Amino acid sequence: MSPKNRDESGTPRILIVGGVAGGASCAARARRLSEEAEIIIFERGPYVSFANCGLPYYVGDVIPDENDLLVATPQYFQQRFNIEARVHNEVTAIDREMNEVEVRNDETGEVYREGYDALVLSPGAAPIRPPLPGIDLPGIFSLRTILDSRQIKEWIVDKGVKQAVIVGGGFIGLEMTENLVRRGISVSIVEMLPQVMPSLDPEMALLVQDHLVTNGVSLHLGDAVAGFEPGADGRSIIVTTQSGEKHPCDMAILAIGVRPEVTLARDAGLEIGALGGIRVDEQMRTSDSRIWAVGDAVEVRDIISGEWMLLALAGLANRQGRIAADAILGRGSRFRGVQATAVCKVFDMVVASTGASEKALRRSGISGQPAHYEKVYLNPAHHVGYYPGAKPIMMKLIFSSEGGRILGAQAVGEEGVEKRIDVISMAIQKDATVFDLEEAELCYAPQFGGAKDPVNLAGMIAANILRGDAPVAHWGELPGGEATILDARTRGEFTASHFEGAINIPLDELRERLGELPQDGEILVYCRQGQRSYYATRILRLNGFDASNISGGMLTHDMQRRVGIR
Amino acid sequence: MSPKNRDESGTPRILIVGGVAGGASCAARARRLSEEAEIIIFERGPYVSFANCGLPYYVGDVIPDENDLLVATPQYFQQRFNIEARVHNEVTAIDREMNEVEVRNDETGEVYREGYDALVLSPGAAPIRPPLPGIDLPGIFSLRTILDSRQIKEWIVDKGVKQAVIVGGGFIGLEMTENLVRRGISVSIVEMLPQVMPSLDPEMALLVQDHLVTNGVSLHLGDAVAGFEPGADGRSIIVTTQSGEKHPCDMAILAIGVRPEVTLARDAGLEIGALGGIRVDEQMRTSDSRIWAVGDAVEVRDIISGEWMLLALAGLANRQGRIAADAILGRGSRFRGVQATAVCKVFDMVVASTGASEKALRRSGISGQPAHYEKVYLNPAHHVGYYPGAKPIMMKLIFSSEGGRILGAQAVGEEGVEKRIDVISMAIQKDATVFDLEEAELCYAPQFGGAKDPVNLAGMIAANILRGDAPVAHWGELPGGEATILDARTRGEFTASHFEGAINIPLDELRERLGELPQDGEILVYCRQGQRSYYATRILRLNGFDASNISGGMLTHDMQRRVGIR
Repeated sequence: MSPKNRDESGTPRILIVGGVAGGASCAARARRLSEEAEIIIFERGPYVSFANCGLPYYVGDVIPDENDLLVATPQYFQQRFNIEARVHNEVTAIDREMNEVEVRNDETGEVYREGYDALVLSPGAAPIRPPLPGIDLPGIFSLRTILDSRQIKEWIVDKGVKQAVIVGGGFIGLEMTENLVRRGISVSIVEMLPQVMPSLDPEMALLVQDHLVTNGVSLHLGDAVAGFEPGADGRSIIVTTQSGEKHPCDMAILAIGVRPEVTLARDAGLEIGALGGIRVDEQMRTSDSRIWAVGDAVEVRDIISGEWMLLALAGLANRQGRIAADAILGRGSRFRGVQATAVCKVFDMVVASTGASEKALRRSGISGQPAHYEKVYLNPAHHVGYYPGAKPIMMKLIFSSEGGRILGAQAVGEEGVEKRIDVISMAIQKDATVFDLEEAELCYAPQFGGAKDPVNLAGMIAANILRGDAPVAHWGELPGGEATILDARTRGEFTASHFEGAINIPLDELRERLGELPQDGEILVYCRQGQRSYYATRILRLNGFDASNISGGMLTHDMQRRVGIR
Repeated sequence: MSPKNRDESGTPRILIVGGVAGGASCAARARRLSEEAEIIIFERGPYVSFANCGLPYYVGDVIPDENDLLVATPQYFQQRFNIEARVHNEVTAIDREMNEVEVRNDETGEVYREGYDALVLSPGAAPIRPPLPGIDLPGIFSLRTILDSRQIKEWIVDKGVKQAVIVGGGFIGLEMTENLVRRGISVSIVEMLPQVMPSLDPEMALLVQDHLVTNGVSLHLGDAVAGFEPGADGRSIIVTTQSGEKHPCDMAILAIGVRPEVTLARDAGLEIGALGGIRVDEQMRTSDSRIWAVGDAVEVRDIISGEWMLLALAGLANRQGRIAADAILGRGSRFRGVQATAVCKVFDMVVASTGASEKALRRSGISGQPAHYEKVYLNPAHHVGYYPGAKPIMMKLIFSSEGGRILGAQAVGEEGVEKRIDVISMAIQKDATVFDLEEAELCYAPQFGGAKDPVNLAGMIAANILRGDAPVAHWGELPGGEATILDARTRGEFTASHFEGAINIPLDELRERLGELPQDGEILVYCRQGQRSYYATRILRLNGFDASNISGGMLTHDMQRRVGIR
């Protein structure tokens, strides 16, 4: 909307389709920028601005009261913001010629039209419900609305659910798993991909998988659901998979992702991106200059790859809502793109990531170019070991091999996990390098970290590679037969298990036993997690050997071997 | 040491004075850069590289085993790093002419000399022990070494200590307080300043003070210790203060800060700074080009004020040790200065800060210029309110009023406190602005934050000021009589207590009652913590009023009033 239009009309009219997250934020922000604007939210559901992210915990009775999920009511919007929120009112069509929408009041059946100066689409995304045989059997649920979660809870109680199948091992699937287990339900997860948590690289996801199994969850990876059959007892459901497995259960939850709700936008002829989301510019404007779109329904730019992507995160929806309101009311705010920072709690484990995964870098590169990246693994304690309760964090840091720009990080552990990812997220936002992480001055007291924080350590290990002090090697990418594989652990550790073909010289004997190593040819050193092998690598290099450190040691060896990397 | 010297000598000889933190890091780093260098650590105490920061928790039996405090032994240094660590050997003089040190072996009494190519001083800092009457009475302790903590523990048990006085309310004093209370000892703190935690601004320190009192600690602020007297019972101590108070106790701990140990450096004629620390350049080199100094004994540059300061933090000592080793062995690493990021746990409360406090900005300015800064207070929950267990964090963000560069942040709360400070610390390191905080993409799941993280909120409130959307006012700096003070809370809240002279229009009635407000003259709005008053400020400004938001509302009012800001 141009200022000219606003002046002509006196009171600009802003219509917002969808009252959760992005839509609600846009409405409130618009009001803070203009007291005159007429602002109407149309929400086809019964609630505006409810706590989407709380639904799994409502199912698990962690949040016992449904009312706690209601962030704001239509009365609140009216009173506080002078914004009209019409629930049970669904916008069914956009008339771009007339700048009008067609609305159906689902309570009265009335169909009416409303004109707009600016229209904001915040329709969200709908759980994917593939057209599989039996998908409409009773007891098969998705989780998107308060109504969904209420129905799931009722079903659990009414049917005395003992066994559930979760279809999909992403964030929602895992949060639902935890909450069903909390209610004493035995859970099987069926996931088409060979890993849970697709935002992680597979070797990191492994830690989550182990933790699920430890908590009694039955995991079925790399196997897609083929259909659903009613059980012989007339009340159970049998989930069948493409591999032929049959998982009987009392309830199935579909958590295989979401698809942007773009029917309205597509029918109106707005540009839709290749991924099926509404295409917008940096001010969240669609291909129609009077129509904006925000939230889970839009495609966003990944700041690392430069590619469009779909990303359903509440924080982004809120940010986009504010930017759309700014644009509508003449401000120049721009959406800077996404880093895909995310966290998920799964039982006692916290899983967090920001920036690109290695998978994503291989697939999409950096700003359209093939990615020249390096990676390190480390397994520091979340705080100093001498203070009771230290828990390891498995971290993976990915960075440009040209200059050290941080590209992404993943961390899995029990404590202090999301803190390290948040710090690295801020670093990525400011185009920081691994050298900056090395020098970061972070909070240290025995309860919270170490004189060298895990973030510092990640930076140091990476910087040692870029400076050439300790070149890195990776399991699965080891060179052929000529290289010597040196195990720098103690004899006891070596005897217990080691990499086939490795020779063992404990670090503390290395200086005296250099003569046992070949003067030419590569030497690749490992230990349990990479620190002793780093020291060994330095000793060897300073003595003229061509040595590299195998990142993450036996810990990553086991991870990588199990995900099938050689 | 120049590379030329190293080549001449073949094996450079690096002597290191002090084997804890900085010295140990320097030694290990030097070895990783040179296998030939001869590296000797002289430590006058019985231990190298012990966990200084763990001592209070050893006293409190949180860390039950003294051995857990020993990070490394001389045997470990020898075996792993080929570094000789001579404990009980004190360097007593430096002969700069001859490039030699004089050493006394405290076990044998032998005095000997060792030559160096490079000398690194890491003598640390000693607890200040003012020459007060009675200071040498038995039962008065400092806490710096394992021996100190062992003696304190023995005294507690042997004398059946029931009552202790902690002299000093800084980090060590408060950590000792917590650990003595944990052992069932009743603690009084006597602090010369009118606040605890001098790194915080006084109104923020107040929250810590309240928490101490809640935990049964008796606080005596703004009163210095005058002396110590033996009690009439022949076993207790009476701590007397300048105000004339007498605090009987069974034990007193001096925690009034530390003083750099510079005797050796001063006697050798090395440059000492105005604050009494060894003066070094960015490569940690002293005024003698063959002598480096690191750790608590050196003065460091504050990256905000540009001024020299003393800062005893383990992370810095480690970083400096590595940089000195780099410099000695020909590498160009530089120390970037300090942000003074720090955290302290006090009972259930976590106190963290980074960058400049408001006090420091007033005193020292920014890079030699008077500081033009602004500040905001906020009191967000550490995670979404609908998920059980949300705890408030009181935050103060200080930023440049010209451009929004982040200058400092302080946070006090129970959960998620140090995470926010770590993120802001990284932001400061990268010269980020409040606009960057607004857009930060941080981890969000209900257990960890909100769609708008407290860091985002701090950025938004600050950005609203800089954009002119919601100018800010502060208690204690309110203009004279003409301004209208508007309380935007509910009638009930207003009735319970309010700022004298304020008028009450609840936010939700404001649009209808604008006529009650004066058309000219300033309107300063407050609520409980600043959010409703922000909305009110926007409504008023959009309606042509000259309105500002009083930062932090009644929460900061109470804080500021209690610290004597009008």
